[in-house]
Amino acid sequence: MSQSFNHVLIHGVGLLGASLGLALKKHRLAHTITGVGRANSPSLSIAQSRHAIDHASTDLASAVPAADLVILCTPIRQFPAAFQTLAPALRPGTIVTDVGSTKSDVCRWASELLPPHVHFIGSHPMAGSEKSGPQAARDNLYHNAVCLLCPPASAESQPAFARIRHLWSTLGMRLIELMPDVHDRWVATISHLPHAVAFALVNAASHEPKMLEAVAGGFLDTTRVASSDVSMWTDIFLTNRAAVLASLDVFSADLAALRDAIAAENEPALRDILTRAKRSRDDLLARRQAAGLSIRSPHTPPSKDAE
Amino acid sequence: MSQSFNHVLIHGVGLLGASLGLALKKHRLAHTITGVGRANSPSLSIAQSRHAIDHASTDLASAVPAADLVILCTPIRQFPAAFQTLAPALRPGTIVTDVGSTKSDVCRWASELLPPHVHFIGSHPMAGSEKSGPQAARDNLYHNAVCLLCPPASAESQPAFARIRHLWSTLGMRLIELMPDVHDRWVATISHLPHAVAFALVNAASHEPKMLEAVAGGFLDTTRVASSDVSMWTDIFLTNRAAVLASLDVFSADLAALRDAIAAENEPALRDILTRAKRSRDDLLARRQAAGLSIRSPHTPPSKDAE
Repeated sequence: MSQSFNHVLIHGVGLLGASLGLALKKHRLAHTITGVGRANSPSLSIAQSRHAIDHASTDLASAVPAADLVILCTPIRQFPAAFQTLAPALRPGTIVTDVGSTKSDVCRWASELLPPHVHFIGSHPMAGSEKSGPQAARDNLYHNAVCLLCPPASAESQPAFARIRHLWSTLGMRLIELMPDVHDRWVATISHLPHAVAFALVNAASHEPKMLEAVAGGFLDTTRVASSDVSMWTDIFLTNRAAVLASLDVFSADLAALRDAIAAENEPALRDILTRAKRSRDDLLARRQAAGLSIRSPHTPPSKDAE
Repeated sequence: MSQSFNHVLIHGVGLLGASLGLALKKHRLAHTITGVGRANSPSLSIAQSRHAIDHASTDLASAVPAADLVILCTPIRQFPAAFQTLAPALRPGTIVTDVGSTKSDVCRWASELLPPHVHFIGSHPMAGSEKSGPQAARDNLYHNAVCLLCPPASAESQPAFARIRHLWSTLGMRLIELMPDVHDRWVATISHLPHAVAFALVNAASHEPKMLEAVAGGFLDTTRVASSDVSMWTDIFLTNRAAVLASLDVFSADLAALRDAIAAENEPALRDILTRAKRSRDDLLARRQAAGLSIRSPHTPPSKDAE
């Protein structure tokens, strides 16, 4: 069986969907791509003019039967409605995957709503940007990043799982397989928590707006993801609620330890807390650089004063 | 009076001091630069080999008399000892400034320890990096960033203040004048708080180290400054203790509001919190871009997959 797909349907042609279209074409993984989006948004026409998709449709149901791969790239809470629309229209053997940031709800919805004769593989490419929309799309958004994948339970879906692994690998991603509940716990800590913290940091610094005029790179980088899409992050926080709350509590305890050391002027404790954090992050960067993984978000606007 | 200096003494030739040496030479603001550092560190020889300084000395007292400008670039808590060493050796009219991240303690120490016949101007160039040492120095580190300055109280120090303003302006900095207590409150929120949060974020994600293998740009950028120098940040947190504690409490309240909205599945409240943060940050970026200020830390390692 060829590893490329004949007709890929991308539902949602924002940053992730349009970047995926560009990447699938660059790597010849899709012969034809249909993008499905809303009628009242310019995204479809932007994605088409950027050649991220070949065909544009505003009707998911009518676009489905042609597809041998369907990729959901909308905000997560639109997935149940999409699964219900897909269910009667999917041909047997069609593969369905997604790029959603949580996996427990998504995999449960898929098992409840999709027919048994299709194969759902939960994917979470750990790539993105605080920018949104197909205008920010790039064909290497997924390159040198990690993709988290949830292996399907059934034996019949293993070939489909192999094809999806091949797809993300070909786009330059490093694959990690893990169960939906483990996935959600991990991303709550390594992705959703930093976003929550960034949103709160901006709000904390905005009570006295004059202060913002004096910020430097530390503030700008620490809060970069607070410029992310609001609908997407509302969805993520609510669909991964329990794990996000747990990670917020772990973080609050670590921040309280730092606060206590400052309050008590306990220099050895303070130095120990900072040293642990610095070592952990420096070691992480060294491992990523050795593995060829990116060590910063790729969407760096060119700096005027970069050397 | 010429705006450039005949003999500049830079005490501390790490990232900030060595970058300052390179920048002063590039802009012809200093005829001769002597760097003072520790005997048991390679920094002095690295700074000299990079031509950030002309002369290297390990004895502050003997290097002082030649200087018409002294710039303190060591960790802040070494300032009192430096002021004591400087006091008997400074010629009348010499200007003393610094690059320290807090100003209340620093300005008080200067007024208590320096003789009245010299001029102390508290400076805080809001530039830096998570990297440290003269090997990371660059002649444009200060370019397109903000410099916070504390105006001296005495009329006799106004010409010195004008020369220091000219110095930072010539290096490409935008100046904001404010009193030491206001300075310390501002930087507690816009600089020290993001650093505290970044250190705590890394520690929170390091309880289960396997998770770190799956991080993406969001985590890496949000925690960039957790790779900063431990001694420098121990000093900063302890010398700006009260303001840092207050800003941590404001942040904790903003984070608790976000947590509460997630816990209560209060979508309108959650959306409002995220929208306020996104708008505030997006507006800030737009203002900075319009003003030609950098919108990201300059120390971006070249990304392999950048377009």
